Amino acid sequence: MKKHNFSAGPCILPQSVLKQASEAVLNFDNLDLSLIEISHRSKNFVAVMEKARSLVLELLNLEGKGYTALFLQGGASLEFLMTPYNLMKNEGGKAAYTNTGTWADKAIKEAKLFGEVAVIASSKDKNHSYIPKNYTIPSDVDYFHCTSNNTISGTQMKTFPKFDGVTVCDMSSDIFSRELDFSQFDLIYAGAQKNMGPAGTTLVVVKDEILGKTGRTIPSMLDYQIHISKDSMFNTPAVFPIYVSMLTLQWLKDLGGIKAIEKINNEKAALLYAEIDSNPNFKGNTATEDRSIMNVTFSLTDDNKKEAFDKLWNAAGINGLNGHRSVGGYRASMYNALPLESVQALVNVMKQL
Amino acid sequence: MKKHNFSAGPCILPQSVLKQASEAVLNFDNLDLSLIEISHRSKNFVAVMEKARSLVLELLNLEGKGYTALFLQGGASLEFLMTPYNLMKNEGGKAAYTNTGTWADKAIKEAKLFGEVAVIASSKDKNHSYIPKNYTIPSDVDYFHCTSNNTISGTQMKTFPKFDGVTVCDMSSDIFSRELDFSQFDLIYAGAQKNMGPAGTTLVVVKDEILGKTGRTIPSMLDYQIHISKDSMFNTPAVFPIYVSMLTLQWLKDLGGIKAIEKINNEKAALLYAEIDSNPNFKGNTATEDRSIMNVTFSLTDDNKKEAFDKLWNAAGINGLNGHRSVGGYRASMYNALPLESVQALVNVMKQL
Repeated sequence: MKKHNFSAGPCILPQSVLKQASEAVLNFDNLDLSLIEISHRSKNFVAVMEKARSLVLELLNLEGKGYTALFLQGGASLEFLMTPYNLMKNEGGKAAYTNTGTWADKAIKEAKLFGEVAVIASSKDKNHSYIPKNYTIPSDVDYFHCTSNNTISGTQMKTFPKFDGVTVCDMSSDIFSRELDFSQFDLIYAGAQKNMGPAGTTLVVVKDEILGKTGRTIPSMLDYQIHISKDSMFNTPAVFPIYVSMLTLQWLKDLGGIKAIEKINNEKAALLYAEIDSNPNFKGNTATEDRSIMNVTFSLTDDNKKEAFDKLWNAAGINGLNGHRSVGGYRASMYNALPLESVQALVNVMKQL
Repeated sequence: MKKHNFSAGPCILPQSVLKQASEAVLNFDNLDLSLIEISHRSKNFVAVMEKARSLVLELLNLEGKGYTALFLQGGASLEFLMTPYNLMKNEGGKAAYTNTGTWADKAIKEAKLFGEVAVIASSKDKNHSYIPKNYTIPSDVDYFHCTSNNTISGTQMKTFPKFDGVTVCDMSSDIFSRELDFSQFDLIYAGAQKNMGPAGTTLVVVKDEILGKTGRTIPSMLDYQIHISKDSMFNTPAVFPIYVSMLTLQWLKDLGGIKAIEKINNEKAALLYAEIDSNPNFKGNTATEDRSIMNVTFSLTDDNKKEAFDKLWNAAGINGLNGHRSVGGYRASMYNALPLESVQALVNVMKQL
């Protein structure tokens, strides 16, 4: 049976990418060797790494603007720590964070180990069901950090505050999903396992000129400047996750890039939110103006219908619809590779309840 | 043509493992979903993680001895940093290291950021072509660190010094290759991409009781105790590399475990070293008693024969035989999955020169 995969991450990837990845595990580039048993310094893999890095800058329209794309390890969780290591001054360091969800909260916790952290806006009072607005970023901070999309609660920043200083954004769950002026950010990071590839690699896009200014001693593996100087190959990179990310980025480019996928993403979101709003059995969990186009969180208006609804969507081949354990309810994650027909299948099931 | 893959890492993996991995990328556990598009918290992947962790302890004969196996990210290079973070006292921290090669040198460099590092033995004077012996480990150090096998130079520790304190070993390039009393170590780490799996995950085996004693504040992602408390799932793990590692560990168990593979590894090494010693065209690069059974480094006695030799082994389908750029010559990496017939193919070619 055809599965409709609404998993929150790791998540659905394009079928054509999975097919190519599966073949490369047996025989890569007609080398009669597997992708995962050749040297990462072979010309074949170096070409993969370089293509992945250049596709990132091309898709984000950041080519020739002083940015470097890196494929590191450790997920966004390691970036929570690398951000202050690389950007917070050793003496009197200070940063401003918005707390818009579980992951932002974790980022704040790690940054506090390095200096003063001003949480300048928070949605914790309402279980992160909205995006705080109208806050002021202090001019004296080393950097401002925000989270563009909150995977668990299902909210998304639609605009970003103007700030003259260094701006950092965790885009783990919505990068490559919508057009933005990405040059408004100086550091973007994202775990691969949503819109880019399998778990095991982390994309970092950094404006080179912001680095090397903290007076802090940085261990080699946590130092963006070292990774830049080694073309993202300071040590053995996560070969397979990077290869699949490259294939997915190429798939996105062939599709027409971010502009094209955003149109589809908006259609998917409009279809599902319309059903949530018009069907008396359901209600959305978040403030309407802050609704994520990636992670749609909703609940039953009558919890007694849970068994019936769960039976319906399971029978329809729908996968990964349970809400995060910390918020309950349902969550439909609709990343780039999820087709509109899967959303239609979910809507059909909702209508049947 | 059948390839003989002597790559230094990422390296050859068992063909049966590659086949299973390739299939899982298309359809895992008959879920009609790819391994890389399901939640890492699904029961199917949790079972993979738990099986991989328990196979490690079983194969190393460390079950029930107070050890935990973790599958982290960042390679040995991140462990160079996590070791002092977790084991070196915050006040007056001190550690003893042996410098037996390039990677040991890098481990020392990172440890120095955290406290005093006594390099108690070094083979740097002879380009790391031997293993230093008869050194004394100071009793007042927080831990002693050594590297069991030196991938680049081709030397291997055959015995380990007796030490009552905390003993740490980087076993990246020879773990699971030979029987040892692994309980003499308190912390073992190894990048997966030699004897265990593809690049992208790092095995850490740690004796729980040594942790939490430094008085140091450790960022979450670098804290072994946090990873232990979360069953190696503090954040999204490297799903595919861990799955392939599990398959490879199962392959090794089915083969008869470390005892069985050590016998084969010794046969492979004996075959190649015998040819190096008896063929006047070649000479070994390392002290005879310290020769690695994993990475065999050798040179031509007459460099004028390089073109002829390179032509011969390339024509025989041999791959990955060039020495590391820092030492030159040749290196035959003969990890667990390399069959004896590949070594025989190399020896045949050497005889033809």
